[in-house]
Amino acid sequence: MMKTVTTPVPDSASTPQFKRWLTGRQQQVQQALQQIFCVPADESRLDAAMQYAVLGGGKRLRPLLAYAAAEALGGAAVTADLAACAVECMHAYSLIHDDLPAMDDDVLRRGQPTCHVKFDEATAILAGDALQALAFEILVSTKTPELAPALRLRMVQELAMASGRNGMVAGQALDMAATGVQLAESKISRMHQLKTGALITASVMLGALSTGLATADQLVALRSFAEAAGLSFQIQDDILDVEASTSVSGKEQGKDARQHKATYTSTLGLQAAKTRLVQVAAQAQAALQDFGPNAAMLRQLAQYLVERKA
Amino acid sequence: MMKTVTTPVPDSASTPQFKRWLTGRQQQVQQALQQIFCVPADESRLDAAMQYAVLGGGKRLRPLLAYAAAEALGGAAVTADLAACAVECMHAYSLIHDDLPAMDDDVLRRGQPTCHVKFDEATAILAGDALQALAFEILVSTKTPELAPALRLRMVQELAMASGRNGMVAGQALDMAATGVQLAESKISRMHQLKTGALITASVMLGALSTGLATADQLVALRSFAEAAGLSFQIQDDILDVEASTSVSGKEQGKDARQHKATYTSTLGLQAAKTRLVQVAAQAQAALQDFGPNAAMLRQLAQYLVERKA
Repeated sequence: MMKTVTTPVPDSASTPQFKRWLTGRQQQVQQALQQIFCVPADESRLDAAMQYAVLGGGKRLRPLLAYAAAEALGGAAVTADLAACAVECMHAYSLIHDDLPAMDDDVLRRGQPTCHVKFDEATAILAGDALQALAFEILVSTKTPELAPALRLRMVQELAMASGRNGMVAGQALDMAATGVQLAESKISRMHQLKTGALITASVMLGALSTGLATADQLVALRSFAEAAGLSFQIQDDILDVEASTSVSGKEQGKDARQHKATYTSTLGLQAAKTRLVQVAAQAQAALQDFGPNAAMLRQLAQYLVERKA
Repeated sequence: MMKTVTTPVPDSASTPQFKRWLTGRQQQVQQALQQIFCVPADESRLDAAMQYAVLGGGKRLRPLLAYAAAEALGGAAVTADLAACAVECMHAYSLIHDDLPAMDDDVLRRGQPTCHVKFDEATAILAGDALQALAFEILVSTKTPELAPALRLRMVQELAMASGRNGMVAGQALDMAATGVQLAESKISRMHQLKTGALITASVMLGALSTGLATADQLVALRSFAEAAGLSFQIQDDILDVEASTSVSGKEQGKDARQHKATYTSTLGLQAAKTRLVQVAAQAQAALQDFGPNAAMLRQLAQYLVERKA
């Protein structure tokens, strides 16, 4: 249901303060991820494939959401390091597997060869598998013993439920099944809510939980925020697939249409998709109405999701 | 290092009491797993593939180890239900992925079509992915709230570490890399310790932890036991691959040799592998020397691992 917007929506995400925050947190998660891979693994080729997938860049949107949610509650960003790394590993695994020949059969990701092209298919499958396990391992690592075990368990639960048969993997399965099929908006919405929305929501929730500061009401508000933000992210993704050139987005323009993927633009049309995007973005902002100035970066991040060109 | 055997090794696992226990616990985990899938998932084909892989049978060795470890500590078997289901889901996922065309390319498993043959490759990859997430979800489910959060976290940690880049997945990667290569026994041993041993050890540890009754010394002893039992399981597997016919084992006889897999029999020769098996099985029994009659089923289960014909 749509709420009335009572908080001012930031005009643009591009304030100098936000830009500094964005770059700073991207560096922070990169360092935290590098730290994890400092401990050598048993099989160097597997490890190289995992690092290729995780350390090779990307917008780090899920870690950014985890950090921003922690900061919105007055927590220090560093408390969300484990949450940020866990959701990024989970995301990286899903990309490796989605790109496989049996799935979307993509050869490029962020302008670079996909994992199975760079290594081989078996290594890519295993690197994805190991990254999923690593995501959980990170959450329960003894690095931040001050976090209460009950809170950590909730984080494991959020992540597990967002990732599996009632979350991300179900979304990918629905996406595969929907290829070549015209879907109603409600079905597309459900598919995206599972495929990308669930992990985006988990990113916000894990960041919030990691602070130990969230009230029950705040968690409810953050979940509403995250669901709207995730949806707006997906709609913008579909719009970009139609509008942005390959050189800007790093993906092949119009790929979804050629693969006959179910998208918002194919179902609603481009203009209606843009209108829907504005509505959903407003819902995301409205969900944060009871949060104070600490939520400034989270608000701007949500705006950034819908303004991004790649 | 080998300990002197001071406890009597059971002559045979085939006592009537053990047979009843075995059947009872196999039924118990089957029911517990069915219970999990009672809640319908979002994507029915994905769910069908998961259930096909998990509910279709198998010896349930890992759940049996979890139950027996819990009982060895005086715990009720039911306390190990979550541990048993979690390790079985993790095992089932690993089998689905190992069977994929890009990996071992197997078309039969337990005499039935493998998951990617029965469904399709994309669904098989996703079913494996979702089963891994489910394993963690089960461990943190709110079904047994009496279990202390700190203990549950240790269970998540054991399972995550046993499954990923320093555990099962690394073992499979080493196995793929070793195909066609003659390895020293120490290397084969390391590969198996990761590929099958790590999850077998986790099964024992999760069962033990789930009781909340284990002392630190008991956990150390159970880990030693599990490592030896896991190794004996693998050596017997290699011996069976040479000796057992396809109709008995449900696998193609001599498949490892044809695929030029590194095995104990190919490295040590059949007779030396059998001698090694007896030594390792004795180590497993010795590790349980300080356990009382409650460990009877665990002792017989270890013996069963080396006496099995399939």
